[in-house]
Amino acid sequence: MSLNQSSDHNRRIVLASRPKGAPANDNFRLEQSDIPKPAEGEVLLRTVFLSLDPYMRGRMSDAASYAEPVAIDEVMVGGTVNRVIESRLDGFAEGDWVLSYTCGWQDYALSDGTMLVNLGKNPPQPSLALGLLGMPGFTAYMGLLDIGAPQKGETLVVAAATGPVGATVGQIGKIKGCHVVGVAGGNKKCDFAVEELGFDACIDHYAEDFDQQLAAACPDGIDVYFENVGGKVLDGVLPLLNTSARIPVCGLVSQYNATNLPEGPDRLGLLMGTILTRRLKVQGFIIFDDYGHRYDEFYQQMSDWYAKGKVKYREQVVEGLEQAPEAFAGMLEGKNFGKLVVRVGEDS
Amino acid sequence: MSLNQSSDHNRRIVLASRPKGAPANDNFRLEQSDIPKPAEGEVLLRTVFLSLDPYMRGRMSDAASYAEPVAIDEVMVGGTVNRVIESRLDGFAEGDWVLSYTCGWQDYALSDGTMLVNLGKNPPQPSLALGLLGMPGFTAYMGLLDIGAPQKGETLVVAAATGPVGATVGQIGKIKGCHVVGVAGGNKKCDFAVEELGFDACIDHYAEDFDQQLAAACPDGIDVYFENVGGKVLDGVLPLLNTSARIPVCGLVSQYNATNLPEGPDRLGLLMGTILTRRLKVQGFIIFDDYGHRYDEFYQQMSDWYAKGKVKYREQVVEGLEQAPEAFAGMLEGKNFGKLVVRVGEDS
Repeated sequence: MSLNQSSDHNRRIVLASRPKGAPANDNFRLEQSDIPKPAEGEVLLRTVFLSLDPYMRGRMSDAASYAEPVAIDEVMVGGTVNRVIESRLDGFAEGDWVLSYTCGWQDYALSDGTMLVNLGKNPPQPSLALGLLGMPGFTAYMGLLDIGAPQKGETLVVAAATGPVGATVGQIGKIKGCHVVGVAGGNKKCDFAVEELGFDACIDHYAEDFDQQLAAACPDGIDVYFENVGGKVLDGVLPLLNTSARIPVCGLVSQYNATNLPEGPDRLGLLMGTILTRRLKVQGFIIFDDYGHRYDEFYQQMSDWYAKGKVKYREQVVEGLEQAPEAFAGMLEGKNFGKLVVRVGEDS
Repeated sequence: MSLNQSSDHNRRIVLASRPKGAPANDNFRLEQSDIPKPAEGEVLLRTVFLSLDPYMRGRMSDAASYAEPVAIDEVMVGGTVNRVIESRLDGFAEGDWVLSYTCGWQDYALSDGTMLVNLGKNPPQPSLALGLLGMPGFTAYMGLLDIGAPQKGETLVVAAATGPVGATVGQIGKIKGCHVVGVAGGNKKCDFAVEELGFDACIDHYAEDFDQQLAAACPDGIDVYFENVGGKVLDGVLPLLNTSARIPVCGLVSQYNATNLPEGPDRLGLLMGTILTRRLKVQGFIIFDDYGHRYDEFYQQMSDWYAKGKVKYREQVVEGLEQAPEAFAGMLEGKNFGKLVVRVGEDS
């Protein structure tokens, strides 16, 4: 046992207050509690990896969204990979690796099997279930293929190009024969997108001439823009969209911390006008709600691509549950490089 | 021969200058020219009805759009119903009624058969080809059924509820079992939408408490918003949209005359956020470009509905080509009541 994870008590990070703007340390509180005992029909889980993802910012707010907000003093939500410590539930045995969507930011939790997936005794790389083979990879796969419907020779643009969604979108785009242009923050990430992930180009969104660089990288316009950030990337993309372009919308990270609408002019009508005159399809989706029934198809295909080296995956591991708040806040500013996970406990 | 249409010369209305804001009389010029002679492979057409439609406002501007702008000093574009005066083209004989998309705002024109539909010797109601059985009706049919995909029991909202697109959208919505709420300007139009067209409710967009009335008429939220006006109707609709709502976008009449973007705050990101969290599909379309291959299906179905009285159609006829500019400008302000056509010449 290390990483301060104990067999005597549970550590958990609760939502202490709702952030105004960027989340700060005092929006979270690290607490101790007893390790619960499983009743009949329950399992006790110990967390090994915690996933940090942009959608969690929305859950910290009480504005209306697609999911209930986390209540004040409740444990922060998040996907986790855990070991089963004790099982009184059919289908789960002590030592099994599982993927849980109800445990959240803590060492131990009970589960009655709801939103719990058994990964078996010895998965080769358990944290993949939080990334390439989990929610981010699934989001990339369905959003791009079902809504984006990329055709060979078309131009695909995706931001957060080294993040788990963007990197996967771009690599699937290459498999489908697209001209793939990424957007990322800084040369290091851009080089990685081109050299390691095989993107045709990647533009640094910090560049002063970002719009011009993006236009130069898309000489035939843009046919699919996979929207995960919004803000100035979208501003640069809008004038380049071709007739009948598709925009799957899975996230708007750049505006999650905004406390007010930006100053005018009001471009809502301009966006609607662009949708009309260019005959765009702009469609939001929430991966498990809209596509849960196609998870198996995704899992098979993505496992195959990964095994064959057609899709690569980069992970950034932060050590220790207590580091989660700062790592999460940094991610919203683009400080991570690859899929961000927290190692909460040892494998065994 | 009456309505000042002569057999000696052609009258035509050309674009004299591009409007800034609302079109004014001096943006148009009525000219005389010779009646042309058909060469081999051409027909000479005489105009009986000219269609006036909101999309023409876009053609008067040189801003990038989905179609080429009308050039200065060129004849204004528009759909027309004509008689064939002389034919040197196979498939067309003197006396035939035709629907033309190349003649435009004038008495006489040649055609080589491009975008020319033969309506036969004796169509029962020739001007229907400009409305219910033409571009507006086809726009309503495909936009609602293919993009909107209304399900029984869902709530459908459409503006310009007594116009040729809106009225048809609402009536198809009723055929499909929807709760249909229209928006129109003034009590007279709203009463017509409910009493004659069978809408469940129709809200006057001039009402000071428009947003509240719209919300009250949509107690279960909005599942399909057929977008043809934009502006304050869209503003009222946005907060009422249900998860997975669909928005076919065929027009934005309320903003066609705008010369500047509205003052802030900038709600572009707010719209994107709504698309994300409510998982909306927002899709623009241009009817013949996107759905031309399905015209026959539409024509059969709509003719059948009309013959059986399931879809009603209201037309407003303005007498005389010289009235077209003022009638067109009035339409952009909602002054028409029903499909606006200009009678340019006598039937025979």
